[in-house]
Amino acid sequence: MNSPIDDLLQQLRQFRDERDWVQFHNPKDLALALSIEAAELNEVFLWKRPEDADPTKVREELADVLLYAFQLADKYGWDIPQLMQEKLTRNAERYPIDKAKGNSLKYNELN
Amino acid sequence: MNSPIDDLLQQLRQFRDERDWVQFHNPKDLALALSIEAAELNEVFLWKRPEDADPTKVREELADVLLYAFQLADKYGWDIPQLMQEKLTRNAERYPIDKAKGNSLKYNELN
Amino acid sequence: MNSPIDDLLQQLRQFRDERDWVQFHNPKDLALALSIEAAELNEVFLWKRPEDADPTKVREELADVLLYAFQLADKYGWDIPQLMQEKLTRNAERYPIDKAKGNSLKYNELN
Amino acid sequence: MNSPIDDLLQQLRQFRDERDWVQFHNPKDLALALSIEAAELNEVFLWKRPEDADPTKVREELADVLLYAFQLADKYGWDIPQLMQEKLTRNAERYPIDKAKGNSLKYNELN
Repeated sequence: MNSPIDDLLQQLRQFRDERDWVQFHNPKDLALALSIEAAELNEVFLWKRPEDADPTKVREELADVLLYAFQLADKYGWDIPQLMQEKLTRNAERYPIDKAKGNSLKYNELN
Repeated sequence: MNSPIDDLLQQLRQFRDERDWVQFHNPKDLALALSIEAAELNEVFLWKRPEDADPTKVREELADVLLYAFQLADKYGWDIPQLMQEKLTRNAERYPIDKAKGNSLKYNELN
Repeated sequence: MNSPIDDLLQQLRQFRDERDWVQFHNPKDLALALSIEAAELNEVFLWKRPEDADPTKVREELADVLLYAFQLADKYGWDIPQLMQEKLTRNAERYPIDKAKGNSLKYNELN
Repeated sequence: MNSPIDDLLQQLRQFRDERDWVQFHNPKDLALALSIEAAELNEVFLWKRPEDADPTKVREELADVLLYAFQLADKYGWDIPQLMQEKLTRNAERYPIDKAKGNSLKYNELN
């Protein structure tokens, strides 16, 4: 049985190929599409307090971000949980608990 | 046994709590953080042809986007594959094959 | 005597040409560069209340946004105050005072 | 006689006040609005070659970016040409001609 991630990737490939969209899906434009969806996600929160944003809209725009993120990873043939795991491990090194605790400084501002 | 997604979410919660960062992680700032990472991803492609971007950097920045996307979904308690599946189904309705094939028009420009 | 805008545009052209950067400055990448600077501007506010952002950093990142915006307009040979004036007039039509007063709805949500 | 920039700023203040929008216009949300407009500008170029983007749409979206950039500067009471001039001078120092000529490296990658 396929994992949920493999299942989504397979559907995304089929969705793209049925529409003959592989010609548009170079990594640069996929990354651009992702950032445009990220802006639409942010627009749900614009001029509002965090708790006043409509969760239904947040959910939809977040889904679009994730769909492009998955397609970009798939373009390079990457394993998604693995690339996330590697970065999470690296972030843990960049933000040591004793230095990062309770502040929001960037890793290159910690000392 | 946990799924890879549940496993990542659990680590992300622990990462956040060990650093006492829940105070910063409201959904509006999480969405903002996501879009900043999306811009860093795009910067890897800036002034370049798609094939000239450094895959190692793409991989790292894409991972950061995904890590924030997962944290935002988790903030709302959402099932990630399910929200993606719902949007993928909706996008398939918005972009009927016969109208969308071979062009890159937005769904509200199709006719 | 040149206007301050013409003076800046002339310096920006010289800056670009001395570095032989016209080869990179197509409108698509200029727009991308602008949005990356916009993200850096937003990063100054990340995890913070509006009043806690460092004005010196805001000023620098906003300047970078404006410098790319001016270069993009100049790429198309546009008069900057004029294009702003046209859009401001259009926005005033899209957001009639009696409908838009005191709310932050988007023009296509007003009725 | 007012400069074109002062004239635009005055109209923007009036536009905002007539709609009672000062309550929404904190610097964090203005910066967010700017980056959302920057994404809409980028969307005009999405899936396209730079020369295939519709200039009419580019012009409109660029205008929105500039209108928010001006409002953000005005929120802090800054002189716009002056802040641009300062950053342009700083960028010239960061990108010495002999090191930056003909390449698109970031200033912290030059050596």
